[in-house]
Order: sequence, then structure tokens, then C-alpha cells
Amino acid sequence: MYDVYEIRKDFPVLEKVIYLDSGATTQTPKSAVLAMNDFFYNYAANYGRGAHRLSIEATNAFEDAREIVADFLNTPPENTIMTKNTTDSINIVANGFGFQKGDHIITTMIEHHSNFVPWLRQKENGAVISVADIDSEGFVNPNQIDEMITDQTKMIAVGHISNVFGSIQNIEKIIQIARKNNIPVLVDGAQSAGHMELDLKALDCDYFAAAGHKGLLGPQGTGVLYIKNPETIQPTVLGGGTTSDADTCGFTTKSSPECFEAGTPNLPGVIGLGAAVEYLQKLGVKNVESHDNKLAQDTAKRLKEIAGVEVYGPQNRAGLVSFNIEGLEPHTVAMRLDKVKNICVRSGYHCAIPGQKALGINGSSRASFALYNTEEEVDIFVEAVGEIAGSR
Amino acid sequence: MYDVYEIRKDFPVLEKVIYLDSGATTQTPKSAVLAMNDFFYNYAANYGRGAHRLSIEATNAFEDAREIVADFLNTPPENTIMTKNTTDSINIVANGFGFQKGDHIITTMIEHHSNFVPWLRQKENGAVISVADIDSEGFVNPNQIDEMITDQTKMIAVGHISNVFGSIQNIEKIIQIARKNNIPVLVDGAQSAGHMELDLKALDCDYFAAAGHKGLLGPQGTGVLYIKNPETIQPTVLGGGTTSDADTCGFTTKSSPECFEAGTPNLPGVIGLGAAVEYLQKLGVKNVESHDNKLAQDTAKRLKEIAGVEVYGPQNRAGLVSFNIEGLEPHTVAMRLDKVKNICVRSGYHCAIPGQKALGINGSSRASFALYNTEEEVDIFVEAVGEIAGSR
Repeated sequence: MYDVYEIRKDFPVLEKVIYLDSGATTQTPKSAVLAMNDFFYNYAANYGRGAHRLSIEATNAFEDAREIVADFLNTPPENTIMTKNTTDSINIVANGFGFQKGDHIITTMIEHHSNFVPWLRQKENGAVISVADIDSEGFVNPNQIDEMITDQTKMIAVGHISNVFGSIQNIEKIIQIARKNNIPVLVDGAQSAGHMELDLKALDCDYFAAAGHKGLLGPQGTGVLYIKNPETIQPTVLGGGTTSDADTCGFTTKSSPECFEAGTPNLPGVIGLGAAVEYLQKLGVKNVESHDNKLAQDTAKRLKEIAGVEVYGPQNRAGLVSFNIEGLEPHTVAMRLDKVKNICVRSGYHCAIPGQKALGINGSSRASFALYNTEEEVDIFVEAVGEIAGSR
Repeated sequence: MYDVYEIRKDFPVLEKVIYLDSGATTQTPKSAVLAMNDFFYNYAANYGRGAHRLSIEATNAFEDAREIVADFLNTPPENTIMTKNTTDSINIVANGFGFQKGDHIITTMIEHHSNFVPWLRQKENGAVISVADIDSEGFVNPNQIDEMITDQTKMIAVGHISNVFGSIQNIEKIIQIARKNNIPVLVDGAQSAGHMELDLKALDCDYFAAAGHKGLLGPQGTGVLYIKNPETIQPTVLGGGTTSDADTCGFTTKSSPECFEAGTPNLPGVIGLGAAVEYLQKLGVKNVESHDNKLAQDTAKRLKEIAGVEVYGPQNRAGLVSFNIEGLEPHTVAMRLDKVKNICVRSGYHCAIPGQKALGINGSSRASFALYNTEEEVDIFVEAVGEIAGSR
């Protein structure tokens, strides 16, 4: 039984504010915080199975967490890399793929900077970048990507759910097109992982990047990267943990996932992430998906009815709604919502300048939902937006 | 007053084990864990000062922590970058310096792989690597580095304290030599930060890399990088947080420290690190330094008196002692210490294969000390080593 009022008891901060900024980061359930405390108080140690009891316990807990995440995404644990955040995950691929002069990369206009700038930077290595358009609702047309493909295309990088428009891209179609042309696809799952049911084996993408601290409910400082074939990526951050042997002539790198996880890992963070994903699994991600999307779709519909309010993105959207009130800066709207009703929304470009500019939007306010938000919160939020719009 | 028995109350796990693995990671004091809990339960949000109250509070707490760390190291906060670990810190410099064909890098034989492999990898860009020798006690001779310098030398990378030998390098002399030749110096402070008094302004190195989770007592998943002149390093991990503008043609990168901190930062970890460094400052790092070094020096002296025990490193050492018992594998020794007396020591190559092999050591066991260890623990440890050595 999905009982949002029961769920809210696991997130103490929700007693103080109406938290509509889960697109930036979700709150972390108590069970995950307690799992981290357990680590710190009872078995904190560095990674390394061959060492003493605390180290063995810490290593096992870290690997258990990896397995929970891998199971959730339906990926092999050894292909499931623990990173710092989505940006880190995408950069591992962009920096490690080995792009060379003339290589062609396709990305889209709707991407978060994290799935845009790392590719753009490959121009320094001589790569050529094509950027697919978006329509007025924030959708990429897979056929345009198909048409963009050349003999030199080496990567298609596309976001699963737009963090501004809430549009869910047809990545199945894009992957199908890529498969047909034998081109690898990276999916930026920052806004999809934990917010919708995912089966990466069935999806058959080559790379999937996600945050631990968004839909997966884990602590900030955690991220995930799935690499279908680890041999396609050269690790570019090296040191302790990645190296099986070294002398003055050279070094030998371990296999995946170790070769991509240089230095002491974020043991407490990953252990917390594992507990958070367990929590999510118990609730059922399909229930969470319905819950989030319904709140966002209701919100979008109701905001559109308010005079002077513009809402962006499609009606059939994932759990977030970006909007503007005519004549007011997005920051002003966000600050007023905070001041009058303790409502937390984000405002600005949401690290996705190209997409907003392409549609003539100079920033927006964004309400983003998660498993713990309620219809009553939507009521208060919509009413508050109405009052602000009415009092211009 | 430095009262180790009072200090121990802040580290609950010490009731269960004799923890002599602080060279891998220290334990984290309760005050730091509570600071992280406070974040999770009361103001968890993503970074971004312009947003709602929780985000402002989280951002301020993160920046307060940065200032605490910067104050501790005597560095400007904007030059004090929050990373994932020491390895991450060093790789930011190695990957972002822009080494080109013929550039010469000097490192040493005693380095941890984290301060060795990232430089060795620059061979792919055509760089030439020289590796300074170590003497039988694990010391690098600054004069040899002086002699190695050529017109093409672009970097000297040296560890402050060896994680195997406990030898404290004469980095002041090395930096003096480098200054004279106008060559930048990176100091790997993984084993020195928090274990000895440091004033990076006075030291005048160009780059200083450290872990948050070792001497600084913070959680795993945190690290620090000081860059004297941020314009010498091109950020190589890009995305949200690093980018002030982007379009299909290019992007503009923010200034330091933001440009080096891509994606959602490890907010709880860094906030915990700030609380941990505050804890350390209250105790006085000079007191901690004397305490750690005395325990290690006493231990080394007493272990040397045991027949069949070989101890590595100088007598005037920092807080760690690597050793072997004749005829026993290091792992066997570590496992026995754990089994018979709940003693946690690390064993193996300690991610520093070249240095050990150079001195003909095929791995070792290592006892490493921190502010919470006691003379009584040393007694038990030394006695246990004696028993194991005696029962071969």
C-alpha cells in the first residue's frame, strides 16, 4: 500500500517546508541516514577485502549496496560504477572514449549542461558536434537524429527526461536507430532513475548515467554509471584502487568496476544509497512513478488556468513543472513562494541554458515532485502561485 | 588539555577494536556525524545560493566548511577545492595541466600510486617522467631532484609523508629548489594533512592534495585540493556548476573553485568534514602530531627489539610503522592480530608498489596511529606481535 502520509514520517524536514525541489535533489529517508550512522559508529574503515574485520565489513556493505543498485537497474554489478554524481558519470565516458579528429557526436538542445558541455569539449580533440532540435514541448525527434548520423558518428548522447520540461524522450526509438547504425548511446538518466521503472538490460543502451541523490533517494555525493562494455572506456582518473601493478615504466589497470573508482570510495554515501534504493524498492517504483507524474500533471493543468501564468512542457509529463508568471522574474516568484508559504522551488536556467533559450525562455521557476509530496501541497502551491499572479 | 580517554568517547567503534589503520582512513568523530545528520534531517537541499531557504542554508553550510578547511590549511577559500579524495585532487592537476610532447615531470619512487600513475599516464601525451630514488629509510634526496631538473621540467610531484615508511620528506627544500627554477610543485599531503601543522601559504607549494577522511577526520568521499594559481589548470570534468553559459558553439566556465567542482557536490560529506576539522582544531593539531608520532616511534623501537621482526622507515617518523615478521606473509600477520586481539592493521603493498619493491620488500603489515590511540593499545599490539613472532 502506497501511503504518502506514512512515507512522509521518514523525511523529517517535510514538517517544516513544502519541498518541491526534488529535481535538484530529493530528501534522503531516515533508513539511509541510519545506515550511514551505523557505518560511522560500528564499522568505518577503508575499502579492501583482504584487511581486518572492519575493512571487510565496510567492503561487503559497499558491494552489497552496489548489488542493490545494479539489481534495481538490472545491470551486472561489475558494470555498475559508483561515481560522485551524474556529471562525473558522463565525464568518465566523454573523457575516456578517446574521441579523435573528425569523430562525430550527436547530442540535443534540451540537455542539462552535464550532458552537453562534456561533448562540446571534445571539439578540442577535433570532434564534430551536432545538436538535435527540440519542439515547443521539449521533445527531440528521433528521425532527426537518424538523419544526422554519418559514417563518422561515434556517440549519441541523450537525456531521458528533461529537467526543465519534464518531457520523456523516446529513447527506445533513439537506441533502435543507433543499434541499426552500430553507434553507442549514452542515456542521461538524472531525472529518470528512481522516478520510473527502468530495465537497462532491456533498454540496451551502452552507457547510462544517473545521480544517487535524485530519484534514487541517496545522499549527495553519489552517482551511478552503467557501462555495457567497459573496454570501450579508458579510465582517466587513476591511482589507488585502480592499479594492480606499477613500476617506473608503466602500470597495469584493474578491471571494471575498480578501474573507474579511483581512490577511497564514498563508503558511507554508497552504503546510504543502497539503503535508499531498498526503501524505494519496497514502495515500488511504479507506484512512485504514478504518484510523481500525477502530481505534476495536475499541477501543470491547474497552473495553466491561472491568468498570467505560462507553463512549459507537455501535458503527459514526468514529475516536474517549469513555469513563469508574466512580468515577474523567476527568482522573485521562487522567493515569494518561500516567504509566504514555505514552498521550496528552484528558479533560473536549471543548468540547461541552450534548451530554454531555444524556446525563448529566459529562465523559469520549477516545481519538482517526489514520492513524499501530497495533493494538499499541490493545492497550497497552486493557490500561492495564483495569489502572486493576481497581485502583480 | 589533550586527554586521549576523553577523545575516545567521540569514536564509539574504539570500544570494539584496537584500530591501527588510520593511515587508510581515520574514524570520524560523533560531532561530524551529527553535523551530517543535521543536514539530512533539517536542511538537505542542493547547492545554489539563489534558491529557497533550504538551498541557501545548505550552500552556506558547505561554504562554511570550505572556509574551515581553508583556514586550517591557511589557503584562500576560492583556491581550496572540495574533491572526492586525494586521488581525485591529484588527477585534476595531472589531467588539467595540459602536458605536451617533451614536457618533463619529476616524481619519486616512494609515492602512493595516486601520485605516481597519473604522472606516468602523461607519457600518452608525450611527457617524459623521471623518478627520484629513495634511501633505505624512505627518504628522497632533494639534491637528486635538483640534478634531474631540465629546461623542459614542468612539474615536481612529491609525497609529504610516506604511507609505507612514515618518512617525512624535506619538501621545504624541494620547493626551494623548484622556486629557484620556476617549476611548480605538487605536494601529496594524504598522510600529512591533519597529522602535522601545515601553513600552505608559508610552504608556498603550487598544488596540495589531501584526503578529507584521513588526518582531517572527515567522512570517506571527501578530499581537498589547493591550487595557488587556478589559471594553470584547465577543468576536465564539466557540467552543472562549472558552466556559466553554453550554446551550440561553446561554453563559458566559472572561476575557481566552482569550475573544479562539477555536478552536485558531496554536501553532507563536506559539512561533516568541516565539523571534523573544527574538532581537530579544538584539540590542536600540534598536540595530535606529538601524540601520533610518539606512539609510532615507541612502537617502532619496541618492535625492533623482537627477534624476527623487521621494521621499515626512520626512527624520527610520522605516525605509522610498517613491519614484517620473518617467514610470515603480511596478510597472515594482519589476520592473526585481528583474530587474537581485535587489532586492525593493514597489509600488502599499501598502493605503493614501486617504493617497496625498490627496497626489496614484498609487502608489509602496517600499524598507523591517530589522535585516539593509546599507549595501552601499543602495549597490546607489541605484545601480540611478539607472540606471533615467537610462535612461528
